[in-house]
Amino acid sequence: MIRVVLLGGGNVASHLANAFYDSPSIQLEQIYNRTLSKIEDKHHLAPITDSFENIVPADIYVIATSDIAIESISKKIKKRNGLVVHTSGTTELKSLTNTRTGVFYPLQSFSKDAIIDFLKTPFCLEVKNTEDYKLLESLAKALTNKVYPMTSDQRKKLHVAAVFVNNFVNHMYTIGEDICKENNIPFEVLLPLISETSQKLQQLSPRQAQTGPAKRKDFKTMLVHEKELNSNQKEIYKLLSEAIQNKI
Amino acid sequence: MIRVVLLGGGNVASHLANAFYDSPSIQLEQIYNRTLSKIEDKHHLAPITDSFENIVPADIYVIATSDIAIESISKKIKKRNGLVVHTSGTTELKSLTNTRTGVFYPLQSFSKDAIIDFLKTPFCLEVKNTEDYKLLESLAKALTNKVYPMTSDQRKKLHVAAVFVNNFVNHMYTIGEDICKENNIPFEVLLPLISETSQKLQQLSPRQAQTGPAKRKDFKTMLVHEKELNSNQKEIYKLLSEAIQNKI
Repeated sequence: MIRVVLLGGGNVASHLANAFYDSPSIQLEQIYNRTLSKIEDKHHLAPITDSFENIVPADIYVIATSDIAIESISKKIKKRNGLVVHTSGTTELKSLTNTRTGVFYPLQSFSKDAIIDFLKTPFCLEVKNTEDYKLLESLAKALTNKVYPMTSDQRKKLHVAAVFVNNFVNHMYTIGEDICKENNIPFEVLLPLISETSQKLQQLSPRQAQTGPAKRKDFKTMLVHEKELNSNQKEIYKLLSEAIQNKI
Repeated sequence: MIRVVLLGGGNVASHLANAFYDSPSIQLEQIYNRTLSKIEDKHHLAPITDSFENIVPADIYVIATSDIAIESISKKIKKRNGLVVHTSGTTELKSLTNTRTGVFYPLQSFSKDAIIDFLKTPFCLEVKNTEDYKLLESLAKALTNKVYPMTSDQRKKLHVAAVFVNNFVNHMYTIGEDICKENNIPFEVLLPLISETSQKLQQLSPRQAQTGPAKRKDFKTMLVHEKELNSNQKEIYKLLSEAIQNKI
């Protein structure tokens, strides 16, 4: 049984609290947050606190806060004996100043309202002391079988890649929805294509899967398209079409 | 039973040939292509020909060629009595000069190697003469239950929207893969996030689903990210991050 104290009251912490609670090999000992009201809905999962002095002993302290708070929280629990890890994609391991430190980064998008299936979530792990890897791996394996050891530098790069395949992809969806709304087309017409586009990657690499006017260098169609767009959309259309052409 | 002659030898035609053949309510009478060798692998589905003179009578002639060939093929079969339709997202209905014309546009991405499930594919339909709608609808409903009547102008807009949610999304995946490769990270780490990002749209609108540093106006993280990218990637990162910020 791995004893865990969770620190944080945002989306990531909220999803982790539920997952830790549900796992038979994890004992969620306590949830800390600076503002108690933000974690009050979690009190059925574990005792909650807003005081560092009241934090109980644990094998692992998981800091799942905004990046900016990680370092100061790490200092506040400096004297604790357990392994102290953060869940950030962009924060370096060395931001944690405790004796035993690590990174426990779930690569997933945490909208508050969406359901997260940790079984499908890759966890990227890093530890300062090699002998702590097994403990951190056990914590991850209690939630998922997708576990990847990764250096701080790799994780930073991966986080940037994730911005492209998640945040920027979602913005493409937003533009698609805008165009539909403006023309009284139900956005649902696009959903099967959206689903197919991501599913294809199970069989093909993105390069093999690329289609469309830019890929075909079909300049006539591209010109027709540009005329249909507003200036912001057009700028994106042009830049991404050029980028696709340069990949051929 | 709807008698169909299919004209074309590319990806769309190839997928349609299989689907028409498999449907119990469609009789695939013939497949035409200018270059016979390109459709020889289809001769078990229907008789094939490369001659307009040999084209047999049918209820519907489906022109599934490149956009540029549609008009000339339409002229070559001008004297036929059936309904003549094309499958293009960008070509107007009036490009067809036959007496009875229509559009039969499957909104899907047709990579040669990927399997297409027409059951999940929306078909956008348009006819010149209202009395032909029922026939064209029957053809579509033999393949899918996602059938949408749509004007040429709506279809043109939808096609542009599809470029964003398919072609440009796929380019975001390509950049994600590039970053992974350069840093010895297996691209598979990103697949669950990619899948989750598209699946979210079943419950949330793209606006609700948007996350990430640009959405949070987290300029510190954006600056860190930009330093990790090459100049082409950085230009895309900046433009899309600005676009997301402008949406808030």
